[in-house]
Amino acid sequence: MQSKILELLRSAGDGYISGEEIATQLGVSRTAVWKHIQELKAAGYDIVSHSRSGYSLREAPDLLLPQEIRNLLRTRLIGREIVHFEDIASTNNEAKRLAIQGAADGTIVVSEAQGAGKGRLSRGWFSPKGKGIWFSVILRPCFLPQDAPKCTLMAAVAIVRAVRKFDIQVGIKWPNDILYEGRKLVGILTEMSAEMERINYVVIGTGINVNLLPEDFPPEVKDIATSLAMIKGEKLPRVKLFAEIITAMEDLYLAAQKEGFAPVLDEWRRYTVTLGQDVNVIGINETFTGRAVDIDADGALLVETAEGCRRVLAGDVSIRPHKKE
Amino acid sequence: MQSKILELLRSAGDGYISGEEIATQLGVSRTAVWKHIQELKAAGYDIVSHSRSGYSLREAPDLLLPQEIRNLLRTRLIGREIVHFEDIASTNNEAKRLAIQGAADGTIVVSEAQGAGKGRLSRGWFSPKGKGIWFSVILRPCFLPQDAPKCTLMAAVAIVRAVRKFDIQVGIKWPNDILYEGRKLVGILTEMSAEMERINYVVIGTGINVNLLPEDFPPEVKDIATSLAMIKGEKLPRVKLFAEIITAMEDLYLAAQKEGFAPVLDEWRRYTVTLGQDVNVIGINETFTGRAVDIDADGALLVETAEGCRRVLAGDVSIRPHKKE
Repeated sequence: MQSKILELLRSAGDGYISGEEIATQLGVSRTAVWKHIQELKAAGYDIVSHSRSGYSLREAPDLLLPQEIRNLLRTRLIGREIVHFEDIASTNNEAKRLAIQGAADGTIVVSEAQGAGKGRLSRGWFSPKGKGIWFSVILRPCFLPQDAPKCTLMAAVAIVRAVRKFDIQVGIKWPNDILYEGRKLVGILTEMSAEMERINYVVIGTGINVNLLPEDFPPEVKDIATSLAMIKGEKLPRVKLFAEIITAMEDLYLAAQKEGFAPVLDEWRRYTVTLGQDVNVIGINETFTGRAVDIDADGALLVETAEGCRRVLAGDVSIRPHKKE
Repeated sequence: MQSKILELLRSAGDGYISGEEIATQLGVSRTAVWKHIQELKAAGYDIVSHSRSGYSLREAPDLLLPQEIRNLLRTRLIGREIVHFEDIASTNNEAKRLAIQGAADGTIVVSEAQGAGKGRLSRGWFSPKGKGIWFSVILRPCFLPQDAPKCTLMAAVAIVRAVRKFDIQVGIKWPNDILYEGRKLVGILTEMSAEMERINYVVIGTGINVNLLPEDFPPEVKDIATSLAMIKGEKLPRVKLFAEIITAMEDLYLAAQKEGFAPVLDEWRRYTVTLGQDVNVIGINETFTGRAVDIDADGALLVETAEGCRRVLAGDVSIRPHKKE
């Protein structure tokens, strides 16, 4: 009902719509309309009431509310369900909990803040209130568990696509860190539950530093992290960016299920900053250096070393601070 | 305490041990000993009491009790924790629940019966009370998610090793069905939770038809299933077989973590009935036929077809009823 009232308010643009007209169009009493308007105001919507003209929407709150996001979405799978929190420990953990309970393919969990945001390899992810897009998406793809790592590359491609619509030229460091001038802007943590030949669910957790300012970062990441607002010099509209990300993700996901991941990998290659660089690879059991030459069909990084070409499926890959030849 | 009393009773062999001696050795009162003996009797232990000689253990119950299994185990990882149920819906689901709560590498969940035993691809597994070994083991290996399917082959090899100790020559149908003369004896369902580059846990669920008789099977599997007792013509000791399986699993698991899976795959090749046969492959999107020639380093089945060699990672593979050339 609130979504429908918002829709009517928006259709009036800068003008007014009377409580009576809303009541008639939605088939409810004027008192019911009044109650819903009060609730929207309480949720942060700036709605002015005029005794004769009725109601007018001046501004939506800067929150990632499902009705706000859906207002911009035309997807049919990802974001069909959006679960929004003011604050939660970890959107990935909540998404896994919902997935076990049977949540549908494409369900999104988003929170204004995370108390214990999770990064790769048990690292944390700093997620202050209202400053970023901290979300997880539940996917139930029909491909094999072996293909799941490519979902992570896909998520990175989707985010770069969306961010570039705001004229910000970011790059991907293998496998899925998104960087700007060497500073981290986005982190992705993908988890899955699978049988040997079937994925139960994949949860892709993403943290995007949108409107953080230098003073928002804790000291330990201040020098290695950045935000879109710091790059752009102004705040970005989170809802709009989020809708672009969801749209890109759905387009890539549906295409990958139909035609495979080759187009995703090709787009990844266009966005990456890793290929062509000398890299240090810190693996599970060893460390080595070489030149990153390509990714293969599995999304593994191919590194040319003195002893031949090595295939890297996991580990930390850092770009060595050499000049390009 | 009950385990310690059983140990003392067993050390007396067919003879007696007095309540006083048990009390002294364990540092408890005679009344406490008497209470524990009553509990053991209630659990199914056949213990005779003699007013002058004391207690004597005649027979342990035919139950997969942790103290009975551990009595035969010398493993240091698998079976260190054994959780036993009279009846549970699914040992795999219980094992996953315990794994999420942090259960240790090697923890075993075993039940006398399963109300809703799970098979591969959402099929069920018939698990009547006391007739089989229905169990799941939680592993936390340090290898990549891509290597997890090989855990399934490893489990099949462990079971064949153990069963062969009872002079029963069973074979493995790719990937992990265990058959005797074409009839199914053992099913394995492996599930995992992982990040892209790290396994959180693997749960290997195994159902072994030990002492089922023809009349125990439901009509729909009567013609395609068998049991060890039906093959052997007599009941098998479940506890002893279970201890052999756990031991074989630990040996293979520790070796694989140290040296990789090549020895597991070699042993699998020795036990398989699939290689060298003409097979029908029913995959996710297609069906084809060919000759199964080998498995590769990932455990995938290599099938030679008219159009060349195909690599099968998932699906149903049935052996075509042709004579070997």
